[in-house]
Amino acid sequence: MIRDFEQLMNEAIKKGPKRLVVAAAGDREVLKAVKLAIDNKLVEAVLVDDRDIIKSVARDIDIDMNKVEIVNVSNKLEACEKAVQLLSSGQGDILMKGLIDTSIIMKAVLNKEFGLRSGELISHITMIESRVLKRLLFVTDGGINIKPSLEEKKDIIRNAVNVAIKLGYEKPKVAVIAAIEKINSAMPETIEAAALAKMSDRGQISGAIIDGPLAIDNALSEEAARIKGIESAVAGKADILLAPEIIAGNILGKSPIYFAGDRIATIIGGTSKPVVLTSRANTADIKLISIAATVLMA
Amino acid sequence: MIRDFEQLMNEAIKKGPKRLVVAAAGDREVLKAVKLAIDNKLVEAVLVDDRDIIKSVARDIDIDMNKVEIVNVSNKLEACEKAVQLLSSGQGDILMKGLIDTSIIMKAVLNKEFGLRSGELISHITMIESRVLKRLLFVTDGGINIKPSLEEKKDIIRNAVNVAIKLGYEKPKVAVIAAIEKINSAMPETIEAAALAKMSDRGQISGAIIDGPLAIDNALSEEAARIKGIESAVAGKADILLAPEIIAGNILGKSPIYFAGDRIATIIGGTSKPVVLTSRANTADIKLISIAATVLMA
Repeated sequence: MIRDFEQLMNEAIKKGPKRLVVAAAGDREVLKAVKLAIDNKLVEAVLVDDRDIIKSVARDIDIDMNKVEIVNVSNKLEACEKAVQLLSSGQGDILMKGLIDTSIIMKAVLNKEFGLRSGELISHITMIESRVLKRLLFVTDGGINIKPSLEEKKDIIRNAVNVAIKLGYEKPKVAVIAAIEKINSAMPETIEAAALAKMSDRGQISGAIIDGPLAIDNALSEEAARIKGIESAVAGKADILLAPEIIAGNILGKSPIYFAGDRIATIIGGTSKPVVLTSRANTADIKLISIAATVLMA
Repeated sequence: MIRDFEQLMNEAIKKGPKRLVVAAAGDREVLKAVKLAIDNKLVEAVLVDDRDIIKSVARDIDIDMNKVEIVNVSNKLEACEKAVQLLSSGQGDILMKGLIDTSIIMKAVLNKEFGLRSGELISHITMIESRVLKRLLFVTDGGINIKPSLEEKKDIIRNAVNVAIKLGYEKPKVAVIAAIEKINSAMPETIEAAALAKMSDRGQISGAIIDGPLAIDNALSEEAARIKGIESAVAGKADILLAPEIIAGNILGKSPIYFAGDRIATIIGGTSKPVVLTSRANTADIKLISIAATVLMA
């Protein structure tokens, strides 16, 4: 079971190199991460963008052009479509978003003809390396599904569980987060949390131990759960935190960066091939960790 | 302007002692905090609960019974009502919640005959002492208003602004938090955030600089705001974070405790007298800080 990003990198290096296809690769921070991934033997890279832009940025950061393949395209939209097509035709293992809006690359990923749909719901997963808690946390969904239904929450959990299992978690513990740990009909997410916990009991969701509703304190701290008198196999020991909607997931996944100085990695679940979907605000270091995580999933 | 809890304690000590009325005071953690507050000359205390229970707990933690007044009641509900009545009849400056459910004490606080209504919306405010950001953050509302309307959000902002002003913030910066910093009609909170920002521009909310929608990264990090190209007087410098609903506020206010080891204090805004509303899971240290904050507001 992987407990921190150093261990994640080491495991990914053992499994690499995989073939990484980068859509709209002509960006300094993106290519810095790709260079680090190549140097660590995590990947071989296919860079899809305007050839001249790639070459000019690459010179700047001293990337060895013998180790990358360039696919020349004339605009960002074409870059996304071409990159996704390379993946779906078997010419790559991992898709990475370069300097392009998430909505544009996601449109290509979701394309019905050549996209990376697996028939499952696509969801967003943030991995947090918590220095204080000394373990990894998976937060979902803070980036794609705005207000998921009960059925969609079930799929979002399954995607995160699949990622955790690939990272060596035998039976990950899922906390369905709400503002309180009691059922309250004024907060419908507490009712859906109870339903998800019971779906787990009844075998409707497998491979994980699911409990909820749990407030964030009960989910993360055994002491807080004890004080509240909560008996739960998940309380205080959660691996995966399911947020009731995007805003809560977004806050939960990002605030450890700013409040704790923690590192995070972001990936996509539910696609036929793994996708690295980092933000422009992420450093090359964070992008590298995200690549390493997808290498373990490829 | 108060930047950390040590400074907050020092300022409160200068302003004390105030008269603290504790509803359902017969609890070890509650009385430990009260003892610390008395020893620091922050307060004189009126303890409302069963006299025998108070005496037995007090002996245990070595509280000087000459410095407290006991008001004997026979049950927890009566303790809440009596404590609130003491406040509203002018026999106390600050109300503190002891070992009792929040809903029960809030019912007494909101009582139309003897409660602590000021005519304003009552709201929950968490103060975070961020060690990484090296400043205080005010998060609202993670504890009372489940899904506030636009008008209620305006009131929630005003309550938090009033608290910040009492703590020396001249014109606090308010970030209205969403999952993204752009307006998106699939996320109605982004539209309401824009409305709140414009209400501030038009003078409909005064005493603060308000901007939104901002994602948590843009609100807290100038670097993240710069990368996203956001021009805003609030981005990266927010003092007050307004959450769109209780679940987001609850996560935002609590997760720095577990991810960063930060200390927090929780208070109530909009009442005629300040209220300390800590949770059973809070330590005596956190309860003490919350008392100190209300001393500055009394």
